[in-house]
Amino acid sequence: MRIIRNIRQMSFLARKLRLQGKTIGLVPTMGALHRGHLSLIRKARKENDIVVASIFVNPAQFGPKDDFKKYPRHFSQDVRLCKASGVDIIFYPQAIRMYPGNYKTYVDVGELGGLLCGRFRPGHFRGVATVVTKLFNIIVPHIAYFGQKDAQQAVIIEKIVDDLNIPVRIKIMPTVREEDGLAMSSRNAYLNQRERSDAVVLSRALNLAKNLIAQGNRNPTSIIRKMRQLIHKNKTARVQYISIVNLRDLKPLDRISGKALIALAVLIGKVRLIDNMIIDPNKRN
Amino acid sequence: MRIIRNIRQMSFLARKLRLQGKTIGLVPTMGALHRGHLSLIRKARKENDIVVASIFVNPAQFGPKDDFKKYPRHFSQDVRLCKASGVDIIFYPQAIRMYPGNYKTYVDVGELGGLLCGRFRPGHFRGVATVVTKLFNIIVPHIAYFGQKDAQQAVIIEKIVDDLNIPVRIKIMPTVREEDGLAMSSRNAYLNQRERSDAVVLSRALNLAKNLIAQGNRNPTSIIRKMRQLIHKNKTARVQYISIVNLRDLKPLDRISGKALIALAVLIGKVRLIDNMIIDPNKRN
Repeated sequence: MRIIRNIRQMSFLARKLRLQGKTIGLVPTMGALHRGHLSLIRKARKENDIVVASIFVNPAQFGPKDDFKKYPRHFSQDVRLCKASGVDIIFYPQAIRMYPGNYKTYVDVGELGGLLCGRFRPGHFRGVATVVTKLFNIIVPHIAYFGQKDAQQAVIIEKIVDDLNIPVRIKIMPTVREEDGLAMSSRNAYLNQRERSDAVVLSRALNLAKNLIAQGNRNPTSIIRKMRQLIHKNKTARVQYISIVNLRDLKPLDRISGKALIALAVLIGKVRLIDNMIIDPNKRN
Repeated sequence: MRIIRNIRQMSFLARKLRLQGKTIGLVPTMGALHRGHLSLIRKARKENDIVVASIFVNPAQFGPKDDFKKYPRHFSQDVRLCKASGVDIIFYPQAIRMYPGNYKTYVDVGELGGLLCGRFRPGHFRGVATVVTKLFNIIVPHIAYFGQKDAQQAVIIEKIVDDLNIPVRIKIMPTVREEDGLAMSSRNAYLNQRERSDAVVLSRALNLAKNLIAQGNRNPTSIIRKMRQLIHKNKTARVQYISIVNLRDLKPLDRISGKALIALAVLIGKVRLIDNMIIDPNKRN
């Protein structure tokens, strides 16, 4: 396994590999790898000649009040995990090389970036869209893998790839969960014991919604109210948003008639967690 | 010579050519080809195995008051000129395929897009940056050729390529001029006889600036005032802006001490024309 920090070197190698007819699978990460990332890497391993995992805590997607500085960084552990999972190349660029002092260009997804999490994290998805575009240009992957846990990110990345004609196939893989249902996230490491136990309420609320819909409830307002009530039974939990939206434009649904994305962000203590579920009331799960 | 309208077909062919080891040169145009475009095509012909000329009047770079609808379109003549100049592929996509109804993603260059022409054409350079990014993703050229006549466009394209790590080399070729000095432009076709004769004043004003600098004038304000006076001797002419800026960030210079870009936009009647010159007072021309 190689670790490449230099952008040009990565770019040159990726082009060489493509000219040799190799297929490249990319798993973009911010490090602090967990089983969610590893499931993406395993999938990439199965489907490509070369697996690149990028590890880059992208400053452009953190707001001034966000946790950029304290975001978990476990590089040597990440290296071990990558090696064990069959990664060929870790791309580990420096922030100052990715965004030099005179950096100016951003990929903007308009209103898609201002909904759901975007309401609480202005500029976040512009930062995501920009870094992903950069990584695609540097690594020229055939396939890139992302987790469904970041549902809005997934929709936005599929949109920019489509809109900008980026020659890459996007695969969104299912959320990996702890045994009690908590979605895997690098930010789970911030939780103390009490908070960790309360954090299960995000997935519980999603399951409640799923059951309500299975029982015939098609009214987002009513479902969201019940989810909120469940979550607020936990003293450490404060709902930031719960939305039931369509998957295309992320706009709230008046009524659930087809495929819907139920997404929520909850503060558990000071830790902001997100989770989501895609539900199709017309299909049995 | 092939004419390709379909985006996927173009993208597929370009990738096939690259895998065959061919180099691809791209000349992006909005059609209505003139000798300026043809000089880019000839250069591309010399330097690449495959020359692609794109012809696409890009709606995203026209404002609501701009001349999108009446912008000259001479496709059959363009085809003849491309064929005669050795173009291998004309990429001629449909606007509705480049920007489908739910299109959302734009490449934004921040303040660079708001200076000079950007002050009078809000959104223009965002549209340019976006379409050029799309064309690069579809055609994956090794080298792309642009004219120095669109100086701000050249700076911005070099910036986005650099910032977004787009794997393409940009070559900016000298402005091609009519015998009397008027810079070649598809918009020159809008000029009536009187206006055509007055339009020479843009290049004359640039030459005046050059001479003033050669004589030791280093004061942008004084030089710009004299250029303006010269231009306004023509009754059909109205200066939109004259700026002397540095080439890196396009910001006005207080004093000319090194390489400088002198750029201007002038309305001749209702026709908006631009021209520019790069001057280095420390070098003899």
